[in-house]
Amino acid sequence: MPNPHHNGTPPMPPTLTGFSHAPDRGRGLARDFRVRWALAELGQPYAMRLLDFAGIKTPEHVALHPFGQIPTYQDGDIALFESGAILLHLAERHGGLLPVEPAFRARAISWLFAAVATVEPAIVEREMTGHVERDAPWYAERLPLLDRRIDQRLIALAAALGAQGWLAGAFSIADIAMIDALRRLRSTPLLGDHPTLIAFVDRGEARPAFRDAFDAQHRLFVTVSEAGAR
Amino acid sequence: MPNPHHNGTPPMPPTLTGFSHAPDRGRGLARDFRVRWALAELGQPYAMRLLDFAGIKTPEHVALHPFGQIPTYQDGDIALFESGAILLHLAERHGGLLPVEPAFRARAISWLFAAVATVEPAIVEREMTGHVERDAPWYAERLPLLDRRIDQRLIALAAALGAQGWLAGAFSIADIAMIDALRRLRSTPLLGDHPTLIAFVDRGEARPAFRDAFDAQHRLFVTVSEAGAR
Repeated sequence: MPNPHHNGTPPMPPTLTGFSHAPDRGRGLARDFRVRWALAELGQPYAMRLLDFAGIKTPEHVALHPFGQIPTYQDGDIALFESGAILLHLAERHGGLLPVEPAFRARAISWLFAAVATVEPAIVEREMTGHVERDAPWYAERLPLLDRRIDQRLIALAAALGAQGWLAGAFSIADIAMIDALRRLRSTPLLGDHPTLIAFVDRGEARPAFRDAFDAQHRLFVTVSEAGAR
Repeated sequence: MPNPHHNGTPPMPPTLTGFSHAPDRGRGLARDFRVRWALAELGQPYAMRLLDFAGIKTPEHVALHPFGQIPTYQDGDIALFESGAILLHLAERHGGLLPVEPAFRARAISWLFAAVATVEPAIVEREMTGHVERDAPWYAERLPLLDRRIDQRLIALAAALGAQGWLAGAFSIADIAMIDALRRLRSTPLLGDHPTLIAFVDRGEARPAFRDAFDAQHRLFVTVSEAGAR
């Protein structure tokens, strides 16, 4: 039987980077998770390379991610950073997570950008304020401003979603990015006023590929934590 | 001579939306500008539809842009929102603003997402704080935090750009999005420490298509302002 691999070496699977010391304690809230979810949806194998907070600032990693963040994605000569770019690449490369029909495809890509450039920044701003300014005298007064800004986005998103199951016809990378951004709000009261969005996130989390990706990152978190504790 | 148009009607040019009452007084700092710039680079005709601050919240416009913002882009059945999505669509549709070689294309798309999801949100956060919290007692104390966050992005961006002319080989939509985001800093002292980035922005602004797009938006601003003053 002919060996399908050059030089008898099996091809390297694509490599994704994530944090070795998950600040979310295995809840899958870092931005590598959405890529793992997409790869699970597509049934594509991949290798995880874990970095600690020193590792993401090394010259080797900064050559892959100019802002010293995760995730990055490497597949042979192709290297990407920014979770939105990686999701788009995977959908284009493997098909199935982006509508083929041009009007729906345009809508899905618009929503993908909306998730990472319009919805998520407002959510991250609130998280970051919690980390950096929690002890500042103005924290209590500013928090409602940040909440209101998020809520304006959620109201608009819920209205646009309406009775649709997904943002652009069939399930797509737009839903993966948006649901993953909204998951960051699970530990806040902000989703509470939006049953449409809670149902949307629930729908995403109920997908078998979500469960598979979630379990995989959780197992890895437990393994790394136990190794660190020894 | 055969009429190339169905029913004798010339095809509608694509339509882009922008603000009728430019809060930047004709400096081209709203997010429609980067799309106008790309269309000028591509030599593509388009029509502008201007909306005031009530107009962007009408049901008709919200059907095009769920968050009631500009720009939107319509071309026949295709409708997009989010400037990053529109730039990507234009580059894919017309060619020339996105590298063909897969590794460079991946890099350009990564930088496009970095511009709208990582660099611009930090800049917009500072602007918004200036609008919303300028009179708050904490404003003077928070501003350095916001400046530092932008500066961290600029340091990383300048290091990644280095001696390269553009972010991903040839000039691309990544440069359009990034330069347009950085232009918002022209009125602040923040670009001053980064000669690499000043030169990058200068290089973008020196392109004939940038000048054409800038002049077109400025003429429209003057026309609308004069009409409003009558």
